[in-house]
Amino acid sequence: MNAQGRPVLLFAYFRPDAEAWLEALQPAAELVEIRRWPEAGDPGEVDYIVAWQHPPGFLGRFPAVKAIFWIGAGVDRLLLDPELPEAPVVRMLDESLSVGMAEYVAERVLHYHRLMPIYGDQQQRREWRPLQPPLARDRKVAVLGLGEIGGACAAALASLGFDVRGWSRSLRSLPGVQTANGPLAETLAGCEIVVCVLPLTPQTRGILNAETFAALTGAYLINVGRGGHLVEADLIPALDAGRLAGATLDVFETEPLPAEHPFWGDPRIVVTPHAAAVTHPSSAGAGIVANLRRAVAGEPLVGVVDRTRGY
Amino acid sequence: MNAQGRPVLLFAYFRPDAEAWLEALQPAAELVEIRRWPEAGDPGEVDYIVAWQHPPGFLGRFPAVKAIFWIGAGVDRLLLDPELPEAPVVRMLDESLSVGMAEYVAERVLHYHRLMPIYGDQQQRREWRPLQPPLARDRKVAVLGLGEIGGACAAALASLGFDVRGWSRSLRSLPGVQTANGPLAETLAGCEIVVCVLPLTPQTRGILNAETFAALTGAYLINVGRGGHLVEADLIPALDAGRLAGATLDVFETEPLPAEHPFWGDPRIVVTPHAAAVTHPSSAGAGIVANLRRAVAGEPLVGVVDRTRGY
Repeated sequence: MNAQGRPVLLFAYFRPDAEAWLEALQPAAELVEIRRWPEAGDPGEVDYIVAWQHPPGFLGRFPAVKAIFWIGAGVDRLLLDPELPEAPVVRMLDESLSVGMAEYVAERVLHYHRLMPIYGDQQQRREWRPLQPPLARDRKVAVLGLGEIGGACAAALASLGFDVRGWSRSLRSLPGVQTANGPLAETLAGCEIVVCVLPLTPQTRGILNAETFAALTGAYLINVGRGGHLVEADLIPALDAGRLAGATLDVFETEPLPAEHPFWGDPRIVVTPHAAAVTHPSSAGAGIVANLRRAVAGEPLVGVVDRTRGY
Repeated sequence: MNAQGRPVLLFAYFRPDAEAWLEALQPAAELVEIRRWPEAGDPGEVDYIVAWQHPPGFLGRFPAVKAIFWIGAGVDRLLLDPELPEAPVVRMLDESLSVGMAEYVAERVLHYHRLMPIYGDQQQRREWRPLQPPLARDRKVAVLGLGEIGGACAAALASLGFDVRGWSRSLRSLPGVQTANGPLAETLAGCEIVVCVLPLTPQTRGILNAETFAALTGAYLINVGRGGHLVEADLIPALDAGRLAGATLDVFETEPLPAEHPFWGDPRIVVTPHAAAVTHPSSAGAGIVANLRRAVAGEPLVGVVDRTRGY
């Protein structure tokens, strides 16, 4: 709170593209004084922080902070900060993020379903050979993770007609999706396409591994969760063994993916540069402002992270 | 009609994969005597013909034929037969054909929308460069042809969120689609993806030509109608001039596409072997049997071709 008794919001965005965010947060100026890092003033006056990609320990400098708004849907890196204050952490809920992710996943699933990689190979050989894929309703697709984003992906696939099997830690109910929270191999049995949209937690780290792939035969893997979900060393052996027929990866243990990484050059692997879904400041900023309004009014916030679960 | 007074159905399928069709037609055996070419018996006894890829003039041999069922959604080749009898021609209405085509078109539109060809090029160069495509709702897609199949494609794209502009000879009404039947260039203005699902008629032959492409800038073309819709000689110049950014063609003037054809080797062109939608005998055969039931009962048939319109 500043000397005039107004709440203070600190905008601490450690990346070059800050202006669009600052603009999207302007409607909050009627509720709070907005300060932009490094002009934070007295750290004890800061009530709210909108943070992105700050250095470790940074958030520990603000003793009176009441809520931290993170500009990202996944909070795995944020929660690793040992000096993270006790204040509620709010992850970003951006409708355009879910919509964009569902588009990307729909494109990838249809691409594999409709045998486009095979037609691509045939075109290279100038070979005219029509194939007969089943219809989507006869194609089992597994979606791992049924939160806001995974649920939107599963719903998009169901509306395209696919036979969607959803898997999550807590049992969810989604129209047109057969959901489960039991052993993963039971959900994967018979699935020809597997989509990972999980949050990264100690329980889900490395979940895409040789044992998981052993439940599959000639399946396609799509990872739009986090690089840490995949045991990278297990992927090419699973392709070689025919457990997997191909994979699309948008996320990696090390990003940008190093130029010498074998995934770049493997024709069975499609690499995209963490671009499956992009947060749009215009829509996401409005969500932060709405939450600030709740905070100032003493109402419960939307999207608060459960630190025990990790998402 | 045979000597016992039963109607006669002749199955005249001039391709190797006839057995699945014959099996799907078996339920008609309670209504008609089924004969399989070349065992046609007395040609004057044949009341109905299920035909596919017969030689020119073949249908002229059956003076008493009351209806011809064509195993295809497009009747352009059939109507070119100068000895086609006066009897009603029924084109195939197969739900799985519409569903399959909508899947293919959705895959192609999403693929271009989500910049996958550009990411493919970046992967070749091991280049990590995220791009920011708009959401589907900010992407204008034109669908030319709004019949049973084109309408299914337009509906699928609308449900994926695209801003769909539909164009057809007769003005149609489709939920979520802005339809028109005026000058084609008006519909194409601002469209970044153009899908052709038209029937091939004298009016639509060559409709995808240099003049049409002049209404576009950096657009992607998807032709799943007929090869005759595209003036093939105009395609590569339109790509070179930047009117088009890429094209996917499933149909060609000459099929199979000859090995020396330049489309095979152009990296901006995706060639698929007339495989966008495949008729499934199990579902399509049931439609023919239902129509035969109507014919025997003297009721109006469903899917009769208007020879003046050509579809």
